[in-house]
Amino acid sequence: MIRMAIFGFGTVGKGVAEVLLKKERLLKNLIGDFKVVAIADSKSSLYGDFDLREAIEYKIKHGRLPRDERARDLFDIESFDLLIEATPTNVFDGEPGLGYIREALKRGINVVTSNKGPLVVAFKELNDLAEKKGVHLGYEATVGGAMPVIKLVKKDLAGNQIIKILGILNGTCNYILSRMESEKIGYDQIILEAQQLGIAEADPSYDVEGIDAAAKLVIIANSLLGLDAKFEDVRITGIKNITPEAFDVALKKGYTIRLIAEADEDGKLEVAPRLVKLTNPLAVYGTLNALLIKADLAKELFVIGRGAGKYETASAIISDIIDIYAR
Amino acid sequence: MIRMAIFGFGTVGKGVAEVLLKKERLLKNLIGDFKVVAIADSKSSLYGDFDLREAIEYKIKHGRLPRDERARDLFDIESFDLLIEATPTNVFDGEPGLGYIREALKRGINVVTSNKGPLVVAFKELNDLAEKKGVHLGYEATVGGAMPVIKLVKKDLAGNQIIKILGILNGTCNYILSRMESEKIGYDQIILEAQQLGIAEADPSYDVEGIDAAAKLVIIANSLLGLDAKFEDVRITGIKNITPEAFDVALKKGYTIRLIAEADEDGKLEVAPRLVKLTNPLAVYGTLNALLIKADLAKELFVIGRGAGKYETASAIISDIIDIYAR
Repeated sequence: MIRMAIFGFGTVGKGVAEVLLKKERLLKNLIGDFKVVAIADSKSSLYGDFDLREAIEYKIKHGRLPRDERARDLFDIESFDLLIEATPTNVFDGEPGLGYIREALKRGINVVTSNKGPLVVAFKELNDLAEKKGVHLGYEATVGGAMPVIKLVKKDLAGNQIIKILGILNGTCNYILSRMESEKIGYDQIILEAQQLGIAEADPSYDVEGIDAAAKLVIIANSLLGLDAKFEDVRITGIKNITPEAFDVALKKGYTIRLIAEADEDGKLEVAPRLVKLTNPLAVYGTLNALLIKADLAKELFVIGRGAGKYETASAIISDIIDIYAR
Repeated sequence: MIRMAIFGFGTVGKGVAEVLLKKERLLKNLIGDFKVVAIADSKSSLYGDFDLREAIEYKIKHGRLPRDERARDLFDIESFDLLIEATPTNVFDGEPGLGYIREALKRGINVVTSNKGPLVVAFKELNDLAEKKGVHLGYEATVGGAMPVIKLVKKDLAGNQIIKILGILNGTCNYILSRMESEKIGYDQIILEAQQLGIAEADPSYDVEGIDAAAKLVIIANSLLGLDAKFEDVRITGIKNITPEAFDVALKKGYTIRLIAEADEDGKLEVAPRLVKLTNPLAVYGTLNALLIKADLAKELFVIGRGAGKYETASAIISDIIDIYAR
């Protein structure tokens, strides 16, 4: 029996819980019996013998969970084998997820996370700790949502030398640039509409300034190119100065403009708007993410998918869980 | 020590041998010690204690291997743990690969193959046999070359229900249609030039009539959609009747034409030229392959890569070998 805890019970945490319920039979076939024995959000918790469906309903109704203990307390109150860590991202100090992941790994608990922050701040420390303790740290959901990147390169391209990885890692920016390309309207108008649609945050700076893409690039560089990159190593230019007129010029020559994140084996780390040929598979539209992986044997591999969303992120978390426990 | 045999020593077999030599140290780190102890082509062989590099050189120089024993004889002459099966494809009777794979699995030998024929003719029989004998049958290289499909869906999308898989599975057809789109020249002229470039065979019917794409679709349908599909179940239309004028009409409306193979969970199996929006990631150019995988959680995932080529196919074979033996 795999005893699971979910820390962070917002969109992602609740999405994972829903999928665990909806796919219970399939998952039990794949990984054996399991049970969620602890949940925590930023101010409350639930643990012991509870009904997961009722917990989701309670959280939706009350905006919190029934008990007052906090996430950190649960390590001593309840015992579990797997921490699903889905707290909000802070790419500068990694907290609160960094503390939770560190504590779990120290205690020999497997971790699967959707939280970029801890991996950006302490990639090497956390991976070394997991190895030392003989436990797994899965982080497919931190990069590209349902678009496989980490396991794709480590498994499907096993044996390849990875030369370069570049592409679109932020769906909000891609949505803005796609609309600017097709409708020739300005940044301010698009961002307003994107906010109304829930595609952009109230404060969109994290996305449009390239911070989110840069954070994902650091994880990709450390995980797949063997670098020891820090967030500060990334040269970042956002998309706020791109105008519809720039697209006019680009389109006439057969190009569009996209926010491209690039890391290579020599340590180049850059996020910047770049011209992309319209016939290049990276010229994707809407909120899609897209990556080109250059490798010595496979030559060039593109992967394009949904970089965010409740079930899309859950898809990546579930695939990590199956990877750890598959029988 | 993993003892390997390579059956089929043409482009693919030699490519795998070259990669085993070139990446010997990396691979030994990943899977432990290994050695190629037997090689066979259609009329000759080599076994025992030989130098793999010299074997490649001998084959290139003499067009055959030093010994007269045939592939089938090697099962009794030499003992090995892994058969790398890379003989030519026949999608109608599966031979000679089908006999080799069957014999290997019966003897408890793991098999990795790039040969579509045996999987198209006897997918269920071979997979059941592998399971019964507790050995592995890897066939990533049969579908899409270096473009991951089988392990991508089974591992990266583990937990997802696959609803539909569609896309471009034949690089020769895609090259022909791409050139027709961009240069407005006719089928006969393009096929002649493609033959000179080595992109099309002297008899291109296998590719342009959709047979190759249909064979790959059968493997995808059986492997990833849980169908029990036969080659005869696929409705096939080739590309020979497509004209440059058809592209004129399509392009004006924002579409191009591509040979699309499609399989869905309800058993639809079709290969036919179809209109594809120019902004759709499946609208790829040149010899690329491209697939769209629709799944319940991940929603839509595109993967685009090199569907053929010596090292590209070796990449898929090596990833299967690592998947079996990774420590």
